[in-house]
Amino acid sequence: MNSVATRARLPIDGRRLLADLQQLRRFGASGTGVVRPALSEADVASRHWLVDRMRGAGLQAGIDGIGTVFGRSPEASRALLIGSHTDTQPEGGWLDGSMGVVYGIEVARALRDRGAPTGLGVDVASWVDEEMRFTNFLGSRSFCGLLSRDDSRELVGRDGCRLEEALRKADLIDRPINRLDPARHFGYLEAHIEQGGVLEATRNKVGVVTAIVGIRSFEVHFTGQQNHAGTTPMHLRRDAGMALVSFAARLDQEFRGIAAERTVWTIGRARFHPGTESIIPGRADLLLQFRDVDSEVLQRLENCLRSVAERQAADGPVAIEARPTARNAVPAKMDAAYQQALADAAAHIVPGKWMRMPSGAGHDAQVFSPLMPTGMLFVPSIGGISHSFDEDTAEEDLIVGCQVFADGVDSILNNQAARRR
Amino acid sequence: MNSVATRARLPIDGRRLLADLQQLRRFGASGTGVVRPALSEADVASRHWLVDRMRGAGLQAGIDGIGTVFGRSPEASRALLIGSHTDTQPEGGWLDGSMGVVYGIEVARALRDRGAPTGLGVDVASWVDEEMRFTNFLGSRSFCGLLSRDDSRELVGRDGCRLEEALRKADLIDRPINRLDPARHFGYLEAHIEQGGVLEATRNKVGVVTAIVGIRSFEVHFTGQQNHAGTTPMHLRRDAGMALVSFAARLDQEFRGIAAERTVWTIGRARFHPGTESIIPGRADLLLQFRDVDSEVLQRLENCLRSVAERQAADGPVAIEARPTARNAVPAKMDAAYQQALADAAAHIVPGKWMRMPSGAGHDAQVFSPLMPTGMLFVPSIGGISHSFDEDTAEEDLIVGCQVFADGVDSILNNQAARRR
Repeated sequence: MNSVATRARLPIDGRRLLADLQQLRRFGASGTGVVRPALSEADVASRHWLVDRMRGAGLQAGIDGIGTVFGRSPEASRALLIGSHTDTQPEGGWLDGSMGVVYGIEVARALRDRGAPTGLGVDVASWVDEEMRFTNFLGSRSFCGLLSRDDSRELVGRDGCRLEEALRKADLIDRPINRLDPARHFGYLEAHIEQGGVLEATRNKVGVVTAIVGIRSFEVHFTGQQNHAGTTPMHLRRDAGMALVSFAARLDQEFRGIAAERTVWTIGRARFHPGTESIIPGRADLLLQFRDVDSEVLQRLENCLRSVAERQAADGPVAIEARPTARNAVPAKMDAAYQQALADAAAHIVPGKWMRMPSGAGHDAQVFSPLMPTGMLFVPSIGGISHSFDEDTAEEDLIVGCQVFADGVDSILNNQAARRR
Repeated sequence: MNSVATRARLPIDGRRLLADLQQLRRFGASGTGVVRPALSEADVASRHWLVDRMRGAGLQAGIDGIGTVFGRSPEASRALLIGSHTDTQPEGGWLDGSMGVVYGIEVARALRDRGAPTGLGVDVASWVDEEMRFTNFLGSRSFCGLLSRDDSRELVGRDGCRLEEALRKADLIDRPINRLDPARHFGYLEAHIEQGGVLEATRNKVGVVTAIVGIRSFEVHFTGQQNHAGTTPMHLRRDAGMALVSFAARLDQEFRGIAAERTVWTIGRARFHPGTESIIPGRADLLLQFRDVDSEVLQRLENCLRSVAERQAADGPVAIEARPTARNAVPAKMDAAYQQALADAAAHIVPGKWMRMPSGAGHDAQVFSPLMPTGMLFVPSIGGISHSFDEDTAEEDLIVGCQVFADGVDSILNNQAARRR
């Protein structure tokens, strides 16, 4: 790591970084993984620990009324937001989200140790509930004013727990909720594990994110005629299950013809009703999702989906209806200057071992990208595994990633200082 | 109906028949349908009513230790068994099974009124639990010695109720179980609604069953790699759900090429795991069943299934395993002479309005067909509907069917008498 440290502009302390990550890992630890859903007992305990670490980094820190941990650079009048999330999936990895928050704390420490441009600094956040225990991007959307306190209080978790109840239990219910301050916050930066296998496969150490993919998703419903599987001849059937199979096969084929290079599409769920051996399914449904960084590609896929459904329904004998679900997202472009700041840092620290790439997963950064310049950095995931106890990243990669991130922050702060002059 | 009665050899009483069917319908009545699962309160009450009706028909009747209602012709030393079932699906039709039992009682009455060949008669049964509350063909298999009392006592219903408990509640637990007596029982005859739309579509009044289809069923398991639906590129996926879709589409196509005229195949269930929007299914499974009267056709289909699975698994990237389920049945040929007896009766009563046909559904008759000469007669189902509150048959068809059945019984008894001389 010596060579990295020597080249660094805003040197971070790799051992301090790893020590914090390992300490955070203990909250909700389960084998090699972590069970720390948002506002669970382990999660609330970890948030109090994060407040301590942020204070130790010289930030004014606290947990707000929605559960977000927020640390403010006290001497800055304008701040770059650095955030990610420390809540996990019901069976989560130790780095997913947590790494980005600890990077923020380490960068704050590095800036405290070396000094930041006058009047500038970083505000560091662990946005509550990125992993959708209660809803998607609960903390970042609340911070950005996209989800009111009243609306969020009505939320019920996938485990049946009410958000209001969880906040009351954590003694957070009466606290104010931090809000984005346009006069202070001029940009947003987030680091995250890649959660895919591209960096590993290409032997790159960091990825500079170009955009976060947009998502469109649909429930497709097939309505035929439930009947006896023994006495109903093949030519008289209106089999909703086989209609689903034909539809899925045809859609997959047509999508292959019109998809962009990195488009992904997934049928995550398929169900036959009533779902027993000797009954021809009268109803069936599937859940389809597709992702791309380009809205035009998404629209092309949606048109194709509707066309396949209409053509097959016209041929009969099963009715088909495609309904968009509530869980859509528009593509989120990352800011060109922020990409460049991270790219320059990567080229300096790990020359020839970095790449630009889209994010196939959603991140809090996409909440900020319509509102302010936003950037993201990825580090490699071993085996491309995430949302699993097996998720991991090499220690060296964690340190190198943080150094690139820190130098990117340094560059963005310097550019911001130059703009003010 | 006058013309039918005039032509009849063993005249039945249509009004008496319909009155019994309507009385039986009241046990567990729900709108136009019936809710009378085996050994439910309504079912047990109906069994006591059946005992009374059998006694009224001159039979020695009782409920045995497994729940079957059995009525014996007291003066016969050899008897043709006539049976079907009066239990229903959780949401059943009023005739399915019940019709065949009441036909047996009406035939017993007609024989009592007119007289049977010396020493011959009919024994009438309502075999308990044809509709698989506890297991398939509980009553008929117990009667034939294919299911021991000890084994059956261990059975647990699909609703969690133990058979032993149900028998105890009905005060039947300590009774003996009737058994097939080869010295007495020389054949088996069953009438049933068709449960399909073939008779209606061809405007026929009765169907002489040639064979009950054999059934083979398989669970097919697909094992890929569960992964993130956003970050895993299409070419790196091992999507168990899409493998299921490809398999089902390919199998359907290949089956169409090799099936016999009346072969049916059904994928009644398909499941993706974990079955959520943003996760590539790591596992998937389906339940496939196919039916034909010809064992060679069944074997051809099974070979095809295994071949498709092997070829697709060899191509990758998802492992495929096809496992036979326990619920298989070999095709059950109906006895040629019994078919002829029913065919002659049909040709006499409804000339030009009958046909020979296979049964696509399973029936108690298939338990008897390996053991003794067995025959079956179908009457039309309106709209081909069964296992539904909407199941129905025209009153005229019920009476005509019973008359053909009675004349068939008469012919079989006469043939049996001739054989003894």
